[in-house]
Amino acid sequence: MTKTITLAHGNGGEENNELISKIFYKHFKNDILNKSEDAAILELNGKTAMSTDSFTVSPLFFNGGDIGKLAVCGTCNDLAMMGAKPKYLTCSVIIEEGFSTRELEKIVRSMKKELDINGAMVVSGDTKVVPRGAVDKLFINTTGIGEVEYEGISASNLKEGMSVLVNRDIGAHGATIFSAREGIELESNLETDCASLYPQVKVLIESGIEIVALRDATRGGVSAVLNEWAKASAVCVEIEEEKIPVQESVRGICEMLGFEAVDLANEGTFVLVVPKSDEEKALEVLRKTHESAELIGTVSMQYEGKVILNSSWGTKRFLDLPTGELLPRIC
Amino acid sequence: MTKTITLAHGNGGEENNELISKIFYKHFKNDILNKSEDAAILELNGKTAMSTDSFTVSPLFFNGGDIGKLAVCGTCNDLAMMGAKPKYLTCSVIIEEGFSTRELEKIVRSMKKELDINGAMVVSGDTKVVPRGAVDKLFINTTGIGEVEYEGISASNLKEGMSVLVNRDIGAHGATIFSAREGIELESNLETDCASLYPQVKVLIESGIEIVALRDATRGGVSAVLNEWAKASAVCVEIEEEKIPVQESVRGICEMLGFEAVDLANEGTFVLVVPKSDEEKALEVLRKTHESAELIGTVSMQYEGKVILNSSWGTKRFLDLPTGELLPRIC
Repeated sequence: MTKTITLAHGNGGEENNELISKIFYKHFKNDILNKSEDAAILELNGKTAMSTDSFTVSPLFFNGGDIGKLAVCGTCNDLAMMGAKPKYLTCSVIIEEGFSTRELEKIVRSMKKELDINGAMVVSGDTKVVPRGAVDKLFINTTGIGEVEYEGISASNLKEGMSVLVNRDIGAHGATIFSAREGIELESNLETDCASLYPQVKVLIESGIEIVALRDATRGGVSAVLNEWAKASAVCVEIEEEKIPVQESVRGICEMLGFEAVDLANEGTFVLVVPKSDEEKALEVLRKTHESAELIGTVSMQYEGKVILNSSWGTKRFLDLPTGELLPRIC
Repeated sequence: MTKTITLAHGNGGEENNELISKIFYKHFKNDILNKSEDAAILELNGKTAMSTDSFTVSPLFFNGGDIGKLAVCGTCNDLAMMGAKPKYLTCSVIIEEGFSTRELEKIVRSMKKELDINGAMVVSGDTKVVPRGAVDKLFINTTGIGEVEYEGISASNLKEGMSVLVNRDIGAHGATIFSAREGIELESNLETDCASLYPQVKVLIESGIEIVALRDATRGGVSAVLNEWAKASAVCVEIEEEKIPVQESVRGICEMLGFEAVDLANEGTFVLVVPKSDEEKALEVLRKTHESAELIGTVSMQYEGKVILNSSWGTKRFLDLPTGELLPRIC
């Protein structure tokens, strides 16, 4: 292989085959992935979840992860959040002419590592190389399908009295990307929360906890998840503001940005709703992975379709769906 | 909606929801697609084909099609070529800030029209908006799954004596994109061959023809398909050069480009291998859609893994896998 990717690597001919064999197939190789066919043949039975995501994050490499890890976590997490075990992924990469072959392989290796954590595999792929300037370095699309192991998780199932939890402290991904992009040197060890969530979901299911609603708080952050649920279920979600776990370093970056941590994107942080009777057990299970897991609120009927932040001073304010530009290319 | 897409339309918040509702959901709406969830839940049973493709074609609109039509045809065709009926697609769009909302809707409308031809639907989606310069206008990824209706189609099944056919004249897509990009005014009515191929595959299956190998000749053209088959099956594919159907206008553009029509990309043209005993019936079926369908060659054992072009003068030459840059951003 040449040291950088050339337009010829996207020609559908000889160089294209070389790129596929030496970078993608080398790492993704499995019994289903077939270099000679344009589609994979799978044997599927029963309820199947399907989700897609394109990743445009900048920079491509950041504290605790890179676009490859993100691309596998992002799609596998969307499946896990529907109670599904991630099984088969497709991987489509758009590369800018001149991109480093070594960096590309590093990204693919990261993808493979994360696929293994999920017990998933890439079964079909696509590579495009576009001229300089047509894309900023590299974008990845992953689309995944998973086997539904737990049915009935839904944004519209929230009912009065239920409990709202987060699995860890929030906002780390957004704060990390912002710092990386702006070249902010931090004394802390702030890194992205980017992680595969299926293992945690599996433990929740195996513990017999009733999962009412479950969503990873990606773009739009915890605010977007809670607002979408409040609207879809026609309930009020009341959050105790001081209970929301936020790292000091994330808090610091939020002050610089003028953002709220609840609006920041996460890539390994989820919000969970369970019946009141399961809240303690759920918290205990979540804390096995992250000590920062917390019970942050309850479902009420105070203002239908709204999210309220209660302070310990007794004041209340509405938490709205985020608006405006926030941070582009966060994922 | 604003007249152009802004960064806020990719924020995961309010403007993002507006974009999804007013453009994508409006046209793609169906019982499975759920605005409130990140993954779709499908009921699947049995052999399922899965394929992905990212589309970066430039220009976005061209004679006979646009990137939306192409994005649905491309993925549905990859499924159809495995004997599968296209059923569920995901649609992930990366949009450059400032892109025209009206043009975006035109593209989505084109996608919907082509989905209907396939009897397929979009079940999950993703939209990203990136800052000016991070992508050239708009890229689309579609990933599809289909129900296998005909089993056993494979690149490695070619055997001596079998017949090779094309469903129509070749190279129209490549020639159209090149003309559009270079602003060449043509007197002819040259347009892309971009089309959904499932209907033609369905008729082949229903006619009882044995489909040995089937592939749409996209990037790398007919040359790439034949070379991959010759290698995968360890046979020689012998093509009668003068039998290959090429429109006059495509031939003219090839001369200007210094390309061969067999290397040009197609988006609605496929190569088919059948047993000799089925060749007449297959040709008859194919000609119901395109009069230009043709029997172009046979499988032999003359040079294992190679493709040969025979001329009517009795000369022979090898047709190799395309190399070099060809035309970037053709699909």
